[in-house]
Amino acid sequence: MSPTIDVRRRVLEDNDREAARLRAAFAADGTLVVNLISSPGSGKTTLLETTIRTLAGRFTMAALEGDIATERDADRLRALGIPAHQILTGGSCHLDARLVAAGLERTAFPKVDLLFIENVGNLICPTAYDLGEDMKIALLSTAEGDDKPFKYPGIFARAGVVVITKADLAPHVVFDLEAVRAQVATLNPEAPLLVTSSRTGEGIGAWCDLLVSRLEAKRGGSRACP
Amino acid sequence: MSPTIDVRRRVLEDNDREAARLRAAFAADGTLVVNLISSPGSGKTTLLETTIRTLAGRFTMAALEGDIATERDADRLRALGIPAHQILTGGSCHLDARLVAAGLERTAFPKVDLLFIENVGNLICPTAYDLGEDMKIALLSTAEGDDKPFKYPGIFARAGVVVITKADLAPHVVFDLEAVRAQVATLNPEAPLLVTSSRTGEGIGAWCDLLVSRLEAKRGGSRACP
Repeated sequence: MSPTIDVRRRVLEDNDREAARLRAAFAADGTLVVNLISSPGSGKTTLLETTIRTLAGRFTMAALEGDIATERDADRLRALGIPAHQILTGGSCHLDARLVAAGLERTAFPKVDLLFIENVGNLICPTAYDLGEDMKIALLSTAEGDDKPFKYPGIFARAGVVVITKADLAPHVVFDLEAVRAQVATLNPEAPLLVTSSRTGEGIGAWCDLLVSRLEAKRGGSRACP
Repeated sequence: MSPTIDVRRRVLEDNDREAARLRAAFAADGTLVVNLISSPGSGKTTLLETTIRTLAGRFTMAALEGDIATERDADRLRALGIPAHQILTGGSCHLDARLVAAGLERTAFPKVDLLFIENVGNLICPTAYDLGEDMKIALLSTAEGDDKPFKYPGIFARAGVVVITKADLAPHVVFDLEAVRAQVATLNPEAPLLVTSSRTGEGIGAWCDLLVSRLEAKRGGSRACP
């Protein structure tokens, strides 16, 4: 085995152990944890802003924001009144479970209903790293083009949900939604695909309903199955 | 030194040796080589299509297309009549000099004036890998937002040229061009910043002129300094 592959295997094994510890802690707290993954500029932070505004008052929320540099995204979410912590990865192209655990330890967030983990903007590297989340969310903006699921199959195959963002830009770009649906259906037949626009509000209700139903299912379906 | 850092150092040293060999070969051929780097969906292939259409008949061109999966981008450029080879990285988030050398060996491209290397869609991983190019080009589409240079400083600091793409979308998105200019000026004061739209043709002449003048400068300024 080459040294590169050997090191990578050990890194992923260490990550999986830490992720299992995180998952157990999130389960004990009844916190739904979502790991948002996309290209830079697909609208992860904007979707979170819209989500937080929509669910504020009904659910408690917090966010961990992964980036190479700047506190900008955490600042945007703190401005909405939720606890948010910026994790700077020191150049790494993805979050890992150790960074998430260290971030949570440092912030001492209160126990929340929903914890959003916004990964570093990257469609490739975050894919293999379990963060203890309940689901990975793959975002794809209409401006990025309709060929991306087959070009980046790893994340679209592993995502629990695929969210198309910036639906409001669709009239101004070349984006064949049915082509995207077909690619996602091939890679990941179980994953719901939601079409959203944080600008117009399209699809935001369905997205928030999905989060709430997953939270309720995690907690034993108390409200999902009355 | 940790095993991860040690392996990474050795990988980059090996890469730099191979890149130096490539650079010497490109110099001997008088080929200008540009390494295009951006997020997925910023419009690298579309800019290349427009460039190839603009320069066809005046210069010979070829392209190496880096992707995780699909032959799609090479197919798009071959349709324009230039030799193009798809390099599938086997899951890796960037091209490296060895992949470029192997791709060139396999294709036996004719000697060309301009060789375009389109990296894997990723603003982070390709940054550290020298491919023997004359310059790295960082592309940023208006749809990605105006906060990206400071969030991904590595590539914007190392780019020889920054190309803003999809200027036609600017009226439909939040994008403060002056904010981007200020960030790029801080990170990389020498780098020209060009604003382009492959759809309207805005800035394509300036971009192609820049390529031609860099080619002439590399060949001894025969036409650039008459």
